[in-house]
Amino acid sequence: MHILILGAAGMVGRKLVERLLRDRRLGNSDITKMMLQDVVAPAQPEDSGFPVKTVAGDFAVPGFAQKLVADRPDVIFHLAAIVSGEAELDFDKGYRINLDGTRMLFDAVRLVGGSYKPRVVFTSSIAVFGAPFPDAIGDEFFHTPLLSYGTQKAIGELLLADYSRRGFMDGIGIRLPTICIRPGAPNKAASGFFSNILREPLAGKEAVLPVSEDVRHWHASPRSAVGFLIHAATMDSAVAGARRNLTMPGLSATVGEQIAALKRVGGDKVAARIRREPDPFIIGIVDGWPRNFDASRARKLGFTTAEKTFDDIIRIHIEDELGGKFVN
Amino acid sequence: MHILILGAAGMVGRKLVERLLRDRRLGNSDITKMMLQDVVAPAQPEDSGFPVKTVAGDFAVPGFAQKLVADRPDVIFHLAAIVSGEAELDFDKGYRINLDGTRMLFDAVRLVGGSYKPRVVFTSSIAVFGAPFPDAIGDEFFHTPLLSYGTQKAIGELLLADYSRRGFMDGIGIRLPTICIRPGAPNKAASGFFSNILREPLAGKEAVLPVSEDVRHWHASPRSAVGFLIHAATMDSAVAGARRNLTMPGLSATVGEQIAALKRVGGDKVAARIRREPDPFIIGIVDGWPRNFDASRARKLGFTTAEKTFDDIIRIHIEDELGGKFVN
Repeated sequence: MHILILGAAGMVGRKLVERLLRDRRLGNSDITKMMLQDVVAPAQPEDSGFPVKTVAGDFAVPGFAQKLVADRPDVIFHLAAIVSGEAELDFDKGYRINLDGTRMLFDAVRLVGGSYKPRVVFTSSIAVFGAPFPDAIGDEFFHTPLLSYGTQKAIGELLLADYSRRGFMDGIGIRLPTICIRPGAPNKAASGFFSNILREPLAGKEAVLPVSEDVRHWHASPRSAVGFLIHAATMDSAVAGARRNLTMPGLSATVGEQIAALKRVGGDKVAARIRREPDPFIIGIVDGWPRNFDASRARKLGFTTAEKTFDDIIRIHIEDELGGKFVN
Repeated sequence: MHILILGAAGMVGRKLVERLLRDRRLGNSDITKMMLQDVVAPAQPEDSGFPVKTVAGDFAVPGFAQKLVADRPDVIFHLAAIVSGEAELDFDKGYRINLDGTRMLFDAVRLVGGSYKPRVVFTSSIAVFGAPFPDAIGDEFFHTPLLSYGTQKAIGELLLADYSRRGFMDGIGIRLPTICIRPGAPNKAASGFFSNILREPLAGKEAVLPVSEDVRHWHASPRSAVGFLIHAATMDSAVAGARRNLTMPGLSATVGEQIAALKRVGGDKVAARIRREPDPFIIGIVDGWPRNFDASRARKLGFTTAEKTFDDIIRIHIEDELGGKFVN
């Protein structure tokens, strides 16, 4: 099995690559080849046991996507995107990458033609939804994004469904919860603070909380996100029918509940490293974001999370990222 | 007030132009100038009382939309589209006109810049919805189009909302019911038969019914459609908030109920001109179409239909199109 990953150097991309290199198989098939794309060159894995090609380049440049699919990968993970904050600040860049780039990729697959019909796993986002919301957003709630990023993701979902319906590809779109705890350095996502306030204190550093403690949001660990991607790549897509975009399961929690979990797992001293510093720009964006979902359909189709409580989410971070230790 | 109409030579476009020429005003403003675009030259109106320019050309050719908006029209009606059947048969053409063309128009408006922020009225479609449906589709039901046409319209809605949110324009999208009775010759819309089976018999001609009589669908007269467009152009858009795309009110009726109304208004002899000839292509398309809506939000925002029964729809056709007479 030949796998192509767009956005392989991003946080979720790196986690997915790690998992695939460890498993050396996807579903019932041995992996025979991988191609990793990102705008900066993804790290070249060692001892993969099969050829892994890394490509640096902008997939929204005309002609680039054709090269990526020329080898007819069996599974394509499309994780590449301009994140929410940046797409809001740079209108043209957001549309060029998130809309045009996605369409170019899907068109490149379509234009291979013949019997070629790869599984395409597209990471959408809960930013396709916009307030006001019901208490828990169901699987048939409409898309009224309040960000250009969410608009672009919603358009990607529509294209994925139409290109799949017409037989050009076999797409599954998954709306990831906000990934918590994101490892590594903060990025430009407006949702970054949900992770910062846990990750930084566990590393002995101060973190800024730009919103109030009663902000409620929808979370899943990186481990869960990778599990969703693997399942989306291997599930029987026929059971999804024409409705190929799914809200992933997650955990609904307030910032206050996050901090309480941090206190339980890490202690008061760790939690005291959070500094409150309200930011009107972030508050404005987050105000229109979803808080809770009823992700029944995805659960029925076999998507499951690795965590039941926020304590689990913090423990998974300590286990997967910190070698079991944190700064007391 | 300066008005631009894209798709002015189409059925709804011509009706809208007639109405505007008759009123000579839109809302509280006198019309001072009109520009009418279509792929074939719209008819040059006589005695309009203000300058009317007609333009023939493909609005999805790069640079064309800029020319259309160079004069900074105050209101833009965007009615231009490749219809459902044709967009399904010609994938590239449908995406080029319905997606790229719409985006080029919105971008042309955006790139005028400065304080320019015209009202843009976009005709979307109930084809943004796909089966299975609830009994009556509510205002918050999700978009899962089962046609490329519906996909393209759903994308147009998302763009309209995002471009409006960002302040580039002041858009209102309206999902028109299927227009019944369409005057003139049949077009390539898969929904054409809903009108054909009434219009042709009233003109003394045979009509083909390609589906069964228990097919239920959602209708409004051309007179209502024009009323919706006028209201969308003049309403206070602030009351729509960020949710700028609305399902228009209509009448839910089965084909059998349409025929019963035809018998009541026109007599048995007229209704006997319908020939049953099932067409699997049309049956397949119509099978995934909506049947009934709860269009509460649009009604609350002032959109009202001209008809309460299918008898009204037929009478409006006889009045507006046939000079009050039909072939017995």
